[in-house]
Amino acid sequence: MYFASDNAGPAHPKVMEALVAANAGYAMGYGADPIMDAVRAQIRAIFEAPEAAVYLIINGTAANSVLLSAMTKPWETIFCTDCAHIHEDECNAPEFYTGAKLTLVPTANGKMTADGLREKILGEENRGVHGPQRGPLSITQVTEKGTLYTLDEIRALTATAQEFGMQTHLDGARFANALTALDCSAAEMTWKAGVDTVSFGGTKNGLLGVEACVIFDPEIAWEFELRRKRGGHLLSKHRYLSAQMQAYLADGLWLDMARSANARCVQLAEGLRRHNAATMLFEPQANMIFFEIPRREHKRMLDGGAVYYVMNGDHNVGDPDEPLIGRLVCDWSMTEDGVSQFLDLLRG
Amino acid sequence: MYFASDNAGPAHPKVMEALVAANAGYAMGYGADPIMDAVRAQIRAIFEAPEAAVYLIINGTAANSVLLSAMTKPWETIFCTDCAHIHEDECNAPEFYTGAKLTLVPTANGKMTADGLREKILGEENRGVHGPQRGPLSITQVTEKGTLYTLDEIRALTATAQEFGMQTHLDGARFANALTALDCSAAEMTWKAGVDTVSFGGTKNGLLGVEACVIFDPEIAWEFELRRKRGGHLLSKHRYLSAQMQAYLADGLWLDMARSANARCVQLAEGLRRHNAATMLFEPQANMIFFEIPRREHKRMLDGGAVYYVMNGDHNVGDPDEPLIGRLVCDWSMTEDGVSQFLDLLRG
Amino acid sequence: MYFASDNAGPAHPKVMEALVAANAGYAMGYGADPIMDAVRAQIRAIFEAPEAAVYLIINGTAANSVLLSAMTKPWETIFCTDCAHIHEDECNAPEFYTGAKLTLVPTANGKMTADGLREKILGEENRGVHGPQRGPLSITQVTEKGTLYTLDEIRALTATAQEFGMQTHLDGARFANALTALDCSAAEMTWKAGVDTVSFGGTKNGLLGVEACVIFDPEIAWEFELRRKRGGHLLSKHRYLSAQMQAYLADGLWLDMARSANARCVQLAEGLRRHNAATMLFEPQANMIFFEIPRREHKRMLDGGAVYYVMNGDHNVGDPDEPLIGRLVCDWSMTEDGVSQFLDLLRG
Amino acid sequence: MYFASDNAGPAHPKVMEALVAANAGYAMGYGADPIMDAVRAQIRAIFEAPEAAVYLIINGTAANSVLLSAMTKPWETIFCTDCAHIHEDECNAPEFYTGAKLTLVPTANGKMTADGLREKILGEENRGVHGPQRGPLSITQVTEKGTLYTLDEIRALTATAQEFGMQTHLDGARFANALTALDCSAAEMTWKAGVDTVSFGGTKNGLLGVEACVIFDPEIAWEFELRRKRGGHLLSKHRYLSAQMQAYLADGLWLDMARSANARCVQLAEGLRRHNAATMLFEPQANMIFFEIPRREHKRMLDGGAVYYVMNGDHNVGDPDEPLIGRLVCDWSMTEDGVSQFLDLLRG
Repeated sequence: MYFASDNAGPAHPKVMEALVAANAGYAMGYGADPIMDAVRAQIRAIFEAPEAAVYLIINGTAANSVLLSAMTKPWETIFCTDCAHIHEDECNAPEFYTGAKLTLVPTANGKMTADGLREKILGEENRGVHGPQRGPLSITQVTEKGTLYTLDEIRALTATAQEFGMQTHLDGARFANALTALDCSAAEMTWKAGVDTVSFGGTKNGLLGVEACVIFDPEIAWEFELRRKRGGHLLSKHRYLSAQMQAYLADGLWLDMARSANARCVQLAEGLRRHNAATMLFEPQANMIFFEIPRREHKRMLDGGAVYYVMNGDHNVGDPDEPLIGRLVCDWSMTEDGVSQFLDLLRG
Repeated sequence: MYFASDNAGPAHPKVMEALVAANAGYAMGYGADPIMDAVRAQIRAIFEAPEAAVYLIINGTAANSVLLSAMTKPWETIFCTDCAHIHEDECNAPEFYTGAKLTLVPTANGKMTADGLREKILGEENRGVHGPQRGPLSITQVTEKGTLYTLDEIRALTATAQEFGMQTHLDGARFANALTALDCSAAEMTWKAGVDTVSFGGTKNGLLGVEACVIFDPEIAWEFELRRKRGGHLLSKHRYLSAQMQAYLADGLWLDMARSANARCVQLAEGLRRHNAATMLFEPQANMIFFEIPRREHKRMLDGGAVYYVMNGDHNVGDPDEPLIGRLVCDWSMTEDGVSQFLDLLRG
Repeated sequence: MYFASDNAGPAHPKVMEALVAANAGYAMGYGADPIMDAVRAQIRAIFEAPEAAVYLIINGTAANSVLLSAMTKPWETIFCTDCAHIHEDECNAPEFYTGAKLTLVPTANGKMTADGLREKILGEENRGVHGPQRGPLSITQVTEKGTLYTLDEIRALTATAQEFGMQTHLDGARFANALTALDCSAAEMTWKAGVDTVSFGGTKNGLLGVEACVIFDPEIAWEFELRRKRGGHLLSKHRYLSAQMQAYLADGLWLDMARSANARCVQLAEGLRRHNAATMLFEPQANMIFFEIPRREHKRMLDGGAVYYVMNGDHNVGDPDEPLIGRLVCDWSMTEDGVSQFLDLLRG
Repeated sequence: MYFASDNAGPAHPKVMEALVAANAGYAMGYGADPIMDAVRAQIRAIFEAPEAAVYLIINGTAANSVLLSAMTKPWETIFCTDCAHIHEDECNAPEFYTGAKLTLVPTANGKMTADGLREKILGEENRGVHGPQRGPLSITQVTEKGTLYTLDEIRALTATAQEFGMQTHLDGARFANALTALDCSAAEMTWKAGVDTVSFGGTKNGLLGVEACVIFDPEIAWEFELRRKRGGHLLSKHRYLSAQMQAYLADGLWLDMARSANARCVQLAEGLRRHNAATMLFEPQANMIFFEIPRREHKRMLDGGAVYYVMNGDHNVGDPDEPLIGRLVCDWSMTEDGVSQFLDLLRG
C-alpha cells in the first residue's frame, strides 16, 4: 500500500540486468560510451526527430534547469503554472541556472489555459528595458495534479507562446504516463504540437535515476553541454546512465510500466468513486490522485499501513471531521492486490 | 592496457551486488533511506568524527563545487594550485556555485608549498573593499600530477590558511589511493591535519558514480543541503547512491581497491625506470604516472593497443623525435598482466 | 503640465549649489570624504539610530538590490506585492543580486495585508529542502499605487514577518512623501515599526540621483559594502553623492519638497473629484494619482500639452469611449499654476 | 602636492557649469534626454564610428563589468594581465556580471605581449567541454603601471585574439591620457587596431563620475541595455550624466585636461631622474609614476605634506633604509607649482 511517490519503488529488474551487463571492461566516459550512441538513436526514432540532440542527466530538477538555462536569458521570465515543479519543488534551481524569474499562470486543475497564459504574457514586458523580458513557456505533462493536456491544448499553448516569439519546454517527468494515457506518439505530444525541448523522465517510471534532455533544434546543443558540465551534471562513468535508458526504451518497457501504473490508478479511482466519504479533487488521468476524506479517515488509513502524503495538514492533530487532501501515486510496481488492499482498508 | 583514466574501468562486482540487493521494495527518497543511515555511521567511524555531516553526490565536480559554495562568499577568492581540477577541469562550476574567483598558487609537481600559498595570500586582499577577499584553501590529495602531500605538508598548508582565518577543503577524488600510500588514518589526513571539509571520492575507485561530502563542523550542514538541492544534485532514489557507498566501505573494499591500483602503478614505474628512453616527470606516489618518450614511441604504443592520453601534442603529427608526455592511470581493475603487457610493448 | 514622473523634474537649486561647493580641491574617494561623515550623522539623527550603518548609492534599483542581497540567501524567496517595483521595474536586478526568487502577495490598492502576507508565507516553505525557503519581506512606502501604509499596518506586516523569523526591508523611493503625509517620525515609520533596512530615496524628491541605504543592525554592514562594490556601485568621487544628500537633509529641505509635491497632488485630486467624467482608482495619499477617463479625453489632454503616462492602452488607437487609466505624479517643482492649468484643460 | 589618485581632484568648472545648465525644466529619463543624443553624436564622430552604440555609466568597474558581460559566456575565461583593474580592484564584479573566470597573462611593466597572450590562450581550452572556454581579451590603456601599448602592440594583441575567434575589450579609464600621449586618433587606438568595445573613461579626467561604453558592433547593444538595467546601472535622471560627458567632449576639453596631467607627469619624471636616490620602476608614459626611495625618505615626504600611496609597506614601520615603492598620479588640476613644490621637498 505504498502510494507516497513514484520515486520510492524499485527499478525494473530488466534495468538492473542492463546495468550489470554494462559493467564489463573499459568504456569511454562522459557520454562517449557506445551505449549512448544506441540511446540517442532510440530516442530520435521514438520522437521521429533524426536531428534531435539527446543528453542524459540524473534527475528532473537538473533536466529542467539545464534545459531552461539554454533557452532563457537572465533578464527574462519563464512562464509556468503556479503549481509547477520548477516553481515549488526545485529550491530555486531554475533561477540559479537561468538567472531569470518565473511568472506564474494560475490554474484550477494543474493546467494553464491559453487565455490565462496570454493574459500573463501581456501583463509582463510592456515596460521596455525596465521589466523582465519574455522568456520561454514551460508546461508539465502529466501535470502536478495528475491531469493531462490534450494535444489541442498543448498546441494552443505553444501557438500562444510562438505568437510572442517564445519557445516551449515540456517537463515530462511522467512523460510515459501521459503518452500511454493519451495514446498518441511522442512526436505528436511534443514537436508536432510546437514543443521545443523535453525533459523526458525515466526516474519516476522504473529507472534508478535518469532523465533524457531532448532538444529538437540542435543549435543550442553545445551550449547545453557546457551548461550541463558547469552545473556538475556530466557523469564520467556515463555508461551507467546509458544502460538504464537503453533498457527502458527497449521492447516498449517504458510504455508497459507506465500503462501498468496508470491502470492501477484507474482501479484506485473507481474504488474511490464508490466510496461515499471520498471526493477526488481532479479527474485523475494518469497515475496520480488527489482525494479528500476526513482527518479521522486519513488517520485510520495511515495507521492501518497505507503510505501516502496528506497535503494540507497533520493527520494526527486537529478536528477529526475536517476534510484533508491525500495524494496517491502509483508506480510501475504497484500491484492490483496492493490497490485492492488499500480500497478494502478504506471501506473499513 | 587501458590506462586512460580511473573512471573508465568497471565498478567492483560487490558494488553491483549491493546495488541489486538495494533494489527491493519501497524506500524513502532524498537521503532518508535506511542505507544512508548506515553509510553516515561508517564514514563517521572511518573519520573518527562522530559529529560530521555526511552527504552523497554524483561526482567530483559537484562535490567540490557544492562544498566550496558552502564555505565561500561570492566576493572571495579560493586558493588552489594552477593545475587544480577545480581550475582546469570543471568548466567554471566552482565559480558558478560560489560566485567567487580562484587564486592560483604555482606548483612544480602538483603540490603547493606553504610559502607559495603565503605569498599568494599576502598578494591578495591588501586593498580593502576593492579587491577580492580571502576565501578558503582547496588542496588536492592525490594531486593532479600523481604526487602526495605528506601529513606535515598538509598541516603546514592548513596552518598557513588558519593564520589568515581561512578554512581548508580537500579534494579527495583519489582519497583512498592517498590514504593507502601514506599508510595513515583518514582522520590524520584530514581534520587532525586541519582540514575542514572533504570531497571523499568513490567514482575513480570502483563505484559507478558516488562521492561523499564530509563536513567536520556541522554548522554549515543545512546550507550544504539547500545548495545541493538548488544545484539539482539531490537524488530522489537516493538508496542507489547509499548502496554503492555502503559496499565500498564494507570490509575495507575501498582500501583493497586502492592498494591494488597503487601496486600496479609501482609495477609500471619500475618498468619505466628500467626503460632508457622513458623519463618520469614526477615521482609517482599513488596510481598515476606522467612519462616522456619520443612521439614515435607513443605512436608505436598507441597503435599497438595501449590506451592513454598524450598530454601535450598529437602522437600522429609532428617530429617523430620530439618528446611528448603521456599519462598512465591505474584503476582497481588493472591486472599485473595488463601492466606487464604494456611494459613488454614498450620494450619493443 | 509635466506629470509623467517625479524623476523628470530638475534637482533643487540648493542641491546644485552644494554640488558646486563640494567641487573644491582634493577629497578622499570611496565614501571617505568628510561630507559623508556629516551625512551619516544627519541620517542617524533623523532616524534616531546612532548605530545605523548608512551608505549612498545612485538609484532605487541599486539600493533595493544591494540591500536585499545582504538580507537574503539564494535559496530563499522575498515576499513583496504583485506590483512592487522590485518585481515589475527592475529587470531582474533583485534576482541577479540575491539569487533568490520573489513571492507575490496580491494587492487591491498597492498595499498587502498581514493576512495576505501570512497566507503566502504559509503557502511557501512547507516542503523542507525542496521548496524555496522564507526570505525577507519587502514593502514599499509610498506604494506604487500612491497609497500609504498606516503605522499600524506596517507594524502588523513586520510582526507577521518576525513571527516566521523574517526581516523587513522598506523600499522608500518616496520616503519623504510618505513621512510628511503620515506626519510621523522616520523612526516611527521604520525601526520602531519593525523595519530592518530602508532604501531612503532622494532621486524622486529633488536630487540628481542619490539614495541612502540605512541598516539598523550594523552586523551586515561590511557585507553590504562588499556587495555594493561587487555590483559596481561604489563611487570613487563619492563627495558628489554626499554633497547632494547633505543639502537634501539640511534645514528640512527634503520635507519641504515632499510637502510641496503632496500639496499639488491634493490640489489635483480635488480638481479630479469635481470632474464628473474622471474616476480615481485609489485614494491618493502622497504625490501620485491613478485616474480613469475615456480615451478621447486622454487624447485631448495629451494633445493639449499635458504630459503623463496612459497605463493600459494607446490613447491614439481604439474605441474613443473606452476608459483608460492615466498616472499623474507631482514632483517638488510642480507649481500650483501647473496643476490649475491641467485642471482647466481637463474641464475643457 | 596631492598625487594619491586622479579620482581625488575636483571636476572641471566647465563640467559643473554644464551640470547646472542641464538642471532646467523637465527631461525624459533613462537616456532619452536630448543631451544624450548630442553625446552619442559626439562620440561617434570622435571614434569615426557612425554605427557605434554608446551608453553612459557611473564608473569604470560598472563599464568594464557590463561590457564584458555582454561579450562573454559564463563558461568562458577572460584574458587580462595579472595586474588588471578587473582582476585586482573590482571585488569580483567582472565575475559577478559575466559568470566567467579570468586568465592572467603575466606582465613585467603592466603590458602583456602577444606571445604571452598566445601562450595563455593555448594553455586554456584544450580540454573540450571540461575546461573553461576562450572568452574575450581585455587590455588596459593606459596600463595600471602607467605604461602604454603602441598601436602596433595593440594590433598584435587583437590579431592574436582574433586568430582564436576572440573579441577585445579596452579598459580606457585613462583613455584621454593614452590618446594624447600617443598622439593618435581614437579610431586608430581602438577599432582600427582591432578593438571591439571600449570603456571610455571620464571620471579620472575631470568629470564627477561618468564613463562611456562604446560598442563598435551594435549587435549586442540591446543586450547591453538589459544588462545595464539588471545591474542597477540605468539612471533615471540621466541628463546629469549626459551633461558631464557633453562638456567633457566639447572643444577638446577632455584632451586639454589629459595633456595637462601628462605634462605634469613629465615634469615629475624629470625631477625624479635628477634625484639620485629615486628610481622609477617603469617608463612613465602618461600621468602615473611608480618610484622607489628609502622608507625614511617616504616618511619625510609624507610628513612634509606630500600625499600619495606607498604600495608595498608602511612608511612609518620598518627599516628606514628599505626601499619602498610610491605611486604618483597627476590629474588635470595638478599645477606646475604643485609639482615643483613636491620636487623641492624631495631634494630636501
